[in-house]
Formats: sequence, C-alpha cells, structure tokens
Amino acid sequence: MILVETDASESQMAEVGRVLNGLGLEVRPVGSGRQIVCVTGEDLQAPVMEVLGAIPGVRRVRQVGRPYVLAGRESGAEATVVRVGRAAIGSGEVTVIAGPCAVESREQLLDAARVVAASGAKILRGGTYKPRTSPYSFQGLERRGLELLAEVAAVTGLATVTEVIDERSLEAAVEYVDMLQVGSRNMQNFHLLQAVGRVGKPVLLKRGMSATIEEWLMAAEYILAEGNGQVVLCERGIRTFETYTRNTLDLSAVSLVKTLSHLPVIVDPSHATGRPELIAPMSRAAVAAGADGIIVEVHPKPERALCDGKQSLDPATFTQMMLEVGTVSRALGREA
Amino acid sequence: MILVETDASESQMAEVGRVLNGLGLEVRPVGSGRQIVCVTGEDLQAPVMEVLGAIPGVRRVRQVGRPYVLAGRESGAEATVVRVGRAAIGSGEVTVIAGPCAVESREQLLDAARVVAASGAKILRGGTYKPRTSPYSFQGLERRGLELLAEVAAVTGLATVTEVIDERSLEAAVEYVDMLQVGSRNMQNFHLLQAVGRVGKPVLLKRGMSATIEEWLMAAEYILAEGNGQVVLCERGIRTFETYTRNTLDLSAVSLVKTLSHLPVIVDPSHATGRPELIAPMSRAAVAAGADGIIVEVHPKPERALCDGKQSLDPATFTQMMLEVGTVSRALGREA
Amino acid sequence: MILVETDASESQMAEVGRVLNGLGLEVRPVGSGRQIVCVTGEDLQAPVMEVLGAIPGVRRVRQVGRPYVLAGRESGAEATVVRVGRAAIGSGEVTVIAGPCAVESREQLLDAARVVAASGAKILRGGTYKPRTSPYSFQGLERRGLELLAEVAAVTGLATVTEVIDERSLEAAVEYVDMLQVGSRNMQNFHLLQAVGRVGKPVLLKRGMSATIEEWLMAAEYILAEGNGQVVLCERGIRTFETYTRNTLDLSAVSLVKTLSHLPVIVDPSHATGRPELIAPMSRAAVAAGADGIIVEVHPKPERALCDGKQSLDPATFTQMMLEVGTVSRALGREA
Amino acid sequence: MILVETDASESQMAEVGRVLNGLGLEVRPVGSGRQIVCVTGEDLQAPVMEVLGAIPGVRRVRQVGRPYVLAGRESGAEATVVRVGRAAIGSGEVTVIAGPCAVESREQLLDAARVVAASGAKILRGGTYKPRTSPYSFQGLERRGLELLAEVAAVTGLATVTEVIDERSLEAAVEYVDMLQVGSRNMQNFHLLQAVGRVGKPVLLKRGMSATIEEWLMAAEYILAEGNGQVVLCERGIRTFETYTRNTLDLSAVSLVKTLSHLPVIVDPSHATGRPELIAPMSRAAVAAGADGIIVEVHPKPERALCDGKQSLDPATFTQMMLEVGTVSRALGREA
Repeated sequence: MILVETDASESQMAEVGRVLNGLGLEVRPVGSGRQIVCVTGEDLQAPVMEVLGAIPGVRRVRQVGRPYVLAGRESGAEATVVRVGRAAIGSGEVTVIAGPCAVESREQLLDAARVVAASGAKILRGGTYKPRTSPYSFQGLERRGLELLAEVAAVTGLATVTEVIDERSLEAAVEYVDMLQVGSRNMQNFHLLQAVGRVGKPVLLKRGMSATIEEWLMAAEYILAEGNGQVVLCERGIRTFETYTRNTLDLSAVSLVKTLSHLPVIVDPSHATGRPELIAPMSRAAVAAGADGIIVEVHPKPERALCDGKQSLDPATFTQMMLEVGTVSRALGREA
Repeated sequence: MILVETDASESQMAEVGRVLNGLGLEVRPVGSGRQIVCVTGEDLQAPVMEVLGAIPGVRRVRQVGRPYVLAGRESGAEATVVRVGRAAIGSGEVTVIAGPCAVESREQLLDAARVVAASGAKILRGGTYKPRTSPYSFQGLERRGLELLAEVAAVTGLATVTEVIDERSLEAAVEYVDMLQVGSRNMQNFHLLQAVGRVGKPVLLKRGMSATIEEWLMAAEYILAEGNGQVVLCERGIRTFETYTRNTLDLSAVSLVKTLSHLPVIVDPSHATGRPELIAPMSRAAVAAGADGIIVEVHPKPERALCDGKQSLDPATFTQMMLEVGTVSRALGREA
Repeated sequence: MILVETDASESQMAEVGRVLNGLGLEVRPVGSGRQIVCVTGEDLQAPVMEVLGAIPGVRRVRQVGRPYVLAGRESGAEATVVRVGRAAIGSGEVTVIAGPCAVESREQLLDAARVVAASGAKILRGGTYKPRTSPYSFQGLERRGLELLAEVAAVTGLATVTEVIDERSLEAAVEYVDMLQVGSRNMQNFHLLQAVGRVGKPVLLKRGMSATIEEWLMAAEYILAEGNGQVVLCERGIRTFETYTRNTLDLSAVSLVKTLSHLPVIVDPSHATGRPELIAPMSRAAVAAGADGIIVEVHPKPERALCDGKQSLDPATFTQMMLEVGTVSRALGREA
Repeated sequence: MILVETDASESQMAEVGRVLNGLGLEVRPVGSGRQIVCVTGEDLQAPVMEVLGAIPGVRRVRQVGRPYVLAGRESGAEATVVRVGRAAIGSGEVTVIAGPCAVESREQLLDAARVVAASGAKILRGGTYKPRTSPYSFQGLERRGLELLAEVAAVTGLATVTEVIDERSLEAAVEYVDMLQVGSRNMQNFHLLQAVGRVGKPVLLKRGMSATIEEWLMAAEYILAEGNGQVVLCERGIRTFETYTRNTLDLSAVSLVKTLSHLPVIVDPSHATGRPELIAPMSRAAVAAGADGIIVEVHPKPERALCDGKQSLDPATFTQMMLEVGTVSRALGREA
C-alpha cells in the first residue's frame, strides 16, 4: 500500500485523486482527510513515486509494507499522546482508570469515585450500556447512568470513560463522557468502529478475546481511517485452555504493540484474571512491561455488585495496589 | 429462572406481570410476547409455583436450570424446522447453502447460482455487506449486490441468504433476501441480534471464533427473546493453535448442540478449514455427525475471486462434493 | 534435505557416506539403514545431484522440501498398510480397536473383549501401565495386566494394543501384545519414540494434546528414522478453550494428514469428547472424513470403571455404534 | 485425601500403615518416607481422625482438599527455598539463570559464562541433551557438553543447570551439574519425574506447553512424592492462537502459583516470546509479578547459534537487561 500525505487544499485533493486514479490506483482518503491510502498489488517503481511526490500539495509519499498503514509505527516517529481530562496517556506517565463495572446508583458511584480520586487516578470508569452474555442479566442504567457519571465527575474532578455498544449508546455517551470505550465483543464491529472514528472523542479500544495482534491493530486502523487519531489500545486477556484464570493476560503483546504502533497501550488486569488477588501483581507487571496505564474495577462493596463483583477490588485493596504501582513506576523513571 | 407460558390476552398479561412482581420476581416478556421469563436467584417452593399456575391465562409454569431458557431443548420436545424457500432446515433433510463469498457481478453470481441449483442445493449465499479485517479491502456491492441476489434467485428458483452487519445493511437486506446471516464477528453484537430478532425472517447465526457453546446458545437466546424463533445455528470453526487449517472445525459441538437445543445446526467447512481439499471430507463428516446441512463457498473462477478465493470450490469440485454428501445422507436415511 | 535411497551393501554404504561427507553434507542413516538423510541448508545444483546418483549402490536421490522426509507422502506413492492380527489398517477397511481404559481384572477384560469381538472389531485395547496426572491414582496392573491381555486375546481371537510409557513397560509389552501405543503425553518423548522405533512391532502414535500437525508427523519421523515403518497415527482431540467437551476433536486434521502422509490415521472419539453420547456421531463422522479406523473405550460396567468410566460405552451402546459405523462405511464403499 | 505426618521409626511406620489399612484406607508413603498419603473417597469423621492421630509416631493428620497434597501451600506455611550454588531460589532474591540454548564448544560456553558471571547472575544454563522436534536437528554434545559445563563452572564460579530427557542423560548429568531441568515436552513424562525425584539434586520443572496450572503442580507432586522437595517451577509460555510471539507468556500463572504452592517459580522469557526485543520487558514484568527469578538465553554470537539463535540475547543486550531487572528488584525491596 502507498500512503500519500498532503498539505493540499480541497480542490488540490481532488486533483491528487485524479492523478492517482490515472495511474490505476484505488484511492481511499483517510485520517483528517489530508491523507490518502492507495491499495496496489505490487511495488511501485521509483519514477512513479517521484511523479506522485511532485503533484502539487503532496508532501510525502511512502510505500508501507504492513497492513496497518496508519496505526503502524514508523522508525523514529513520535508516540501518540491521548489527553483525557488531566491524563496524558502515552506521555510516559502511568495513567490509572478505575471505577465500578457498572454504574448502579449515585451513592455507589460517588463512593467509588472518591476512592479513585484520592488514590491519584485520573479517570473514572463505569458501565452504563452493558453488553451481557444473557438477555436476562442487568443491562445497565443507560442514560441515567451517564448523568450520574457526569455529575460525579464534576464533584471529584475525574475524567470519565464508558462503553458504547451501538449507535444509540454512542449518541448518548458523547454528550456526557470524556472517552468512549469499544469493548472486546465489538472489536470487529466495524460499523461501530467507524462511528466512533467520526466522533471527536478519545477511544479506548479493547482487544477481542481471541483477536490476534494484527487484527487488533487493524481495528484501530478503522478508527484512524475515519480521522480520529485519539485511540488507546487495551489488552484485557485472551481466551486459552487455562481455567484457573478468567482469561490469560498477554503482557508480551503490550510490549510488542509498543514497538509495532505509535498508539498508547494500557492493561485491564480485572477482566484478564478475574481474581482480585492477581490484580496488584499484574498491575505492577504491566507497568514494568511498559504499559501506558491500567484500568481496574473498584467497587465500594464488591460483594453487592450487580456485575463482576468477584473481580472488583474493595477500596483498601485498591489503595494498596496504587501504592505498589507507584513504586514500580517511580523506579522506572515514570510519573504515576 | 422461571418460564411462564400463557394464552393470555394483553390485559391478562399485564395482570400476570403484576402478580409476579408482587411475589418479588423480575419480569421479562419474551418470544411472541406470550411468554415471560422471571429471573430469580433461588428455587421457588411448590406452593408458589401452584399460585403462578393458577393465574388466569397462564398455561404452564416451569423452572429452567439452564441459562438458555428458550433455546434449550426440553426432553421430548420437537425440533424446530426453519423453512427458507423450498428448504426445511431441521426436518431431517440435508440442506445445502452454496454460493460465492461475495457477490461481484451479475455474470459471476448467475454462473455460480446455476451450478448451485443444478446440484440440488436449495439456498444461494452471497456476501453483499462484507465485514473485512482491513478498511482497505473490498467491502461488498451493498444494495446493488442485494438486487443481483434477488434477480438471480428469481431466475434459478433458489432462496437467498446474505450477511447483515449493522442496521443499515439489515434494513436493506430484509427487502431482498429470504434469510439473514449474523457472522462470527457479530455473534455477540447484542444490538444486532435484537434487531434481527424483531424481523420476521429466518436467521443464520454463526458461532463466534472463540465462542463457547454456551455463549453461542445465549446469542440465539437474544434473537428468540425478541420473538423470532426461526434461528439456524452454524458451526464455522474455532480459533486454536493449529495453523495448517484456517480454523479448527468443532464437529463435536454440532452433535452436542443438537442434544442441548431444539434449533437446527449446519456446518461451514469453507471457513472452518480454508482449504478446498478438505471441504468434501468435512461435508461428509458433518452429515454423518448429524448436521442439518452445510454452507459452502462456490465460485465460477476461484482464482479470480475478490475474497476467499483460496477456499472456494470450483464448479466441478462442488458437484462432486454434492454427490458424496448425497451418498452419506441416503445411507443415514436422510434426504439430500 | 536430501534423501538418498540405496540398494548398497554395508561396505558400499560406508563409501556412500564418505562421498557425501566429502561434499560437505551431514549424513544420517535412516529407516532400514538403506536410506540416508542429508541435512543441507541450501538447494543442491543439478550436477551435484547427478554425482550423488552415480555413486555405486545409490538407487535414487531426491531433494525433499518438507521436514518429515520419511513420513511425508510423495505424489503417486502408495499408502502404508499396517497389519495387526487380522486387521489391515490403511487398506481401505475401517478398523475398530475397542476395550476398557485399563485392564482391571480377568472377568472385566473378558466381558469387554467378548462384546468387542462379537461386534466385528479386530483389536482389543486395554491400559496396563497408565500415565496418570496424579501419583495417587490407579497406575495399572502392569505385567499382570499384560498377561490378562494375552490370555483374553487367545480366547477371543482379537489382536491387542497397550500403551507403553517408558523402557520398562516397553520391554514387558513387546512380549505380550501385537501393537504398542505411544500416548499423547509422550508424543515428544523422543527417547521413547526411538525405543519403539527399534522394536519390530506396529506403533499407534497419538497426537499430543497441543501438538501441531507438523510436530505430530515429526514424532512419527523419529520412529520411521529408526527403521520401523509400521506407524498408525491417532487423532484424539486437541486442547482448546471449550469446556463442554474434554478436548476438541480435530477431524479436519485427519483428512489433511491423509494428504500429507502415507501413514494410516485413526480417531479416538472417547478421549476427544469425554462424553458417551458423542462417541457414535463422532465415529460416523470419522469414517466419513476418511479415517482408517477408530479406537473406542468400552467397559462392561462403565459406572464401576477404575478410570475414564464417564466416557466409556456400555456394551449395548457400543454395539449400536458399530452398526452405525458399518452403515457409513458400506455407503462409502469401505469394509467395516 | 489425608496426609499423615510422622516422626516414626521404620517399624512404627509399618504399624501405622497396618492401622490405616485396617480402616480401609489405601496407603502411599511419600516425601522423605516419613509422610503417608491416604486416598479416600469421602471425608473422615472427627473420631477417626483422632484415632489416626493417636497412633504412636504420628505427629499430625490432615485432610487435604486439593489434589496436589505436597506441592500445595498451607496457610501460614513457609515458602520453600531451593539452594543451587550461591543462589537461594525462593528466598526473596531474584535469581538469574542464563547461558546458551546449547553447549556448542568450550570457547562459546566460556564466552557466554563470563558475560553471565559479570552481570551478577549465579547459575549457568546450557543444553547438552537436546529434545528436538526433528531427528535431523543438532541433538547436543551430550557427555562432552556436560564436561564443558563443569569445567566452565569451575572457572567462573557459576552453578550449572542442564536438561535431562531420559535415564541415560539423567545418569550422566547428575555427575556434572548442580540442577536438573525437566523440559516442557517431558512435563508429563511421569517415569522421568519419578527418576529425578529419586535423585538428591534440585529440579527445574518447566510447564508443559498446554499444561493447566493444576497439571503443572501435579507434575511437581510426582517429584515431591519421591522424596525430592527441591523443585523450582518455570513458566515458559503456553500455546495459543497468537503467532506474533512463539508462545504466550502466562505471567498471571506465576502470581497464582505463588499463592497455591510453597515452591519457587521462575520465568523463561526467551522461550515464551521467541523475540529478543521482548526479553527485557518480560523480565522486568516477571520480577514485578513476584517471580523468584528468570532464565534467559545468552549467546556470544546469536547469529551463529546452533539452536534458538533468534531468541538469544547478545552480551550487550543481556547486560542492559540485567541492569533493568536490578532496578525493578530493588524498588520492590528484593535483592537482585
């Protein structure tokens, strides 16, 4: 594939497209609309590349060997930093996102958020539209949940993230939260990826439960191609034969993706392990492996949680975990 | 959970709901709207069950141990037969669905359809809205593809199935095809499942690439709970460590699901293996294992296909495969 | 790699070896000792191949692209037939091996064997040295079990197979049984593979529980390289995320291996599924997929079995299964 | 199961056994021979437990719920420390084992060992009897390799570990090295486990490539039951669908096993990832997760290595990795 980067005006862009078409190339405007991906089955000759480079408005032309044209890391290129509230994910800091699996009530959310804020975490998570395996399980408070998130965020100074599962939840969520999450089950819901790609909000993109690293980056590519570059990847465990843990946390994928892509990567030890006693060690390990942050489930009273209570941390355990994460972060010269 | 079946009128239904609520039960109308699923954490006592049974309009009350209340098979219950064109999937016949991965042109589709019809298969498949790993791959002819499907169906006397991937493609497809497919990547796109559940068309529900049997049946439950009972399950291979085949065909899941559920199950050997030389043996094996049918990719010129050419059968190989499937079907007393 | 086939005398063989060494090739005598595998990092030029072919005693010289030099199937080559008692595995017949997980007593084994023989099966299985996950589980009757196998074989006219797990059990088993089994846990116990390779008895080689097809064929290669060509491969399910079945039966591997190798392949539906209700359908499917036979656990009283009782068939169910396997076999023109 | 711990003399032990047999219990002497495991299908009543406790020589009687009676961790029990040369694995220190995949020559081994020793690592690894997927691959220098290990150990002050693959290699290795490794492919080679269990040397037990955590601990149980308590577990990656890495490192298994068992656990990032750029991050992560150490492949000239060259670190990269491991270790209050 060929990536054509331009500083072109709209009319120039149309001209660039015509020239490319004339060369028999299929043209696909991507990103901010100032980039063009051309799909071509074969390597172009140097003279053709020069011709492309000489089109008015064209700044740079590159052949890209990998399928994730925009999500891939060019050697020497800068890492992407995604700003959400006071957090700068990918800047070197260790960003912590925490909160309950689902928003259940004002009191529950506020209690959780106060613990989260006091620990130094910067972003509050809380499910409002829940993708549940069973149609008979609690499906979330929906818009009422979003209102509570916004209210509690205002009180505690935290930024917020919630999962969107379709157009309806996306339309609602963009009004209330700072970051949109695409969950594992929707990692290849390409329609949803394109929809969040058209919205100007940061996106937290979870790895599918049996997605390869390449498929995960291609899912990010769908968002980037729509012009939204604010994507944070999240490793949350893959499905294997082992049943002692809910999933198998693939930490080497985190380090590897940091070399393959310029996008930040965080880790979800709660869903990866499903066991509270493993969340602190896996959070420490994630930071040591180079993750840009973690996302953790915290509930004021895990035993009463409406979902995922078993894997949620209580406030005391969460606070202890944050201290340990801070220790590892500082040792590696990172701000926590 | 408790399943309450009624012959009640609308006003009686409201009354039934009130009584159930009064007993502290959470009420969820399902299916045709004449059934109610109550979620309860504990077993109800016999006297309570009798009270429920005595509510006017209530025909039967049952406690259900499995999470797939509607998709599960009650002992002695009849199997569901899903009718699509001349096919009666689940009736004992071996239904064959065949056609190209994607609709590419009138000529390609017609050539494929003629081979399909001549072999005795009853349903034509053809992708029109394609879920592709890469945003730069061919995404399907969309509405033009649907028009071609309908036209070619009229010419050849075949029924048709195409994949839907979101609301837009669903709205278009219901006008043109006889059966709607939900693909592997969308098996837990619960919004899409509910949407196809509200449409009065048969649904082909593919197993997710790392979905457990229980998750697969729960996905069917989402469709059934919306009142659409015309669901056909499709095993298409699961993701494992083996790389010689595209996926690993889980044939034992087919036999097992036939004991767990009343829904028909068919097999997709094309996506399961990704290798043309394995499609005939796996089709024979599927029938021998008790599958209600198969879905196979056929292309007039596989080497020129715009997608999945490598795993598509050419007409001669497909015709030979149909003969072999027929042999096994007849030996087992089934119509092919 | 290069495979040099010779009709050479011993002294000629030494000369052949010297010439090959002189060409800088590493020499490895294999098979009956009349073949030589040369490992070379690069393709040899035609002139060199001619020089090799001209060495006295050399019949044929071939470059082999696949790593399983001896186990691989050359185009046009005949399939291997392994004879065990009256069975000719790989000849086109559907060979059935059946019997209890473990030999427990004379009465138990005789009861099982009579059912097995009456059904038309030709080989009796029975574990005597058991590889158990726990050191505290029943480890088998060892030599006493072998004596019972031999005695019951004489009474019923069946041939016998038992698993060997180390040198001691191998030394004992060769005296009593007709076929030696190498189990899944030992598929890459290369020392044991070489030891059974040096014994002149047929070998049943089970696929490791997470072995790739290539690793499985390479394990066979270890046996063939020692000069024992009587190897039957056995697919017994691989380890995946699915927990409704004990393992996932990989039937497409059976069809694929039949194209990659000249060795016979049989299927073990008992260990693959761990569920008695799936054994008949998976046996039918195995035959339809082209397997050369099946190996099934039968116990006169499954509920009292000392191991794997849950997955053992009782006599009536086994007899019914044999009828169904016969139906599919005959339909496909095979003798059962 | 019941674990009976005694201070009994040999004659008393026989008496204890008789009493247990009289109660209908199956008796299995384990460990140092002063412990007895009784297999019983049901819970014993308190009075029976008291009778057992009153037998002369019996110190303690416990019912154990888990299958890994000896490998399991009792609440409050001390962790096992395994001493190998100057290393005290499990003591809180971060033990590093490093060296080439295979011993190739005196020069190669000495060069590697000097780098290893200079970095502060305490144990030298080097394969001498190699379990290779292909019979045509380099199988190790065998006894000559052991001699070189011993010689280089004397020069550099390092302790040594090598893999044993059968009785012959075990008999040779015990003369030369300080620690014996049982590799992934042999994790359920129960004969080999028992053989190393009868030798008085520390054992490094690698997890099988698709072994569950329970199977891994049961493999350790085989060694402990023979009286050898000096077992170190090693996580080396499990087999999954992901192909970007050689295996998937299961770091959460490390933290989990530390809670289930009293045995030390180390991590092998070289085999787990197969990619040199991931070894430093995964080593840091392993320490942060609570691993007792790491085992890493180092080669003076990776590009010339006879095996696993691609995943071996060169001296400079290894030295840098050791600095990073030290940083994380110290931050967590551990000695590196």
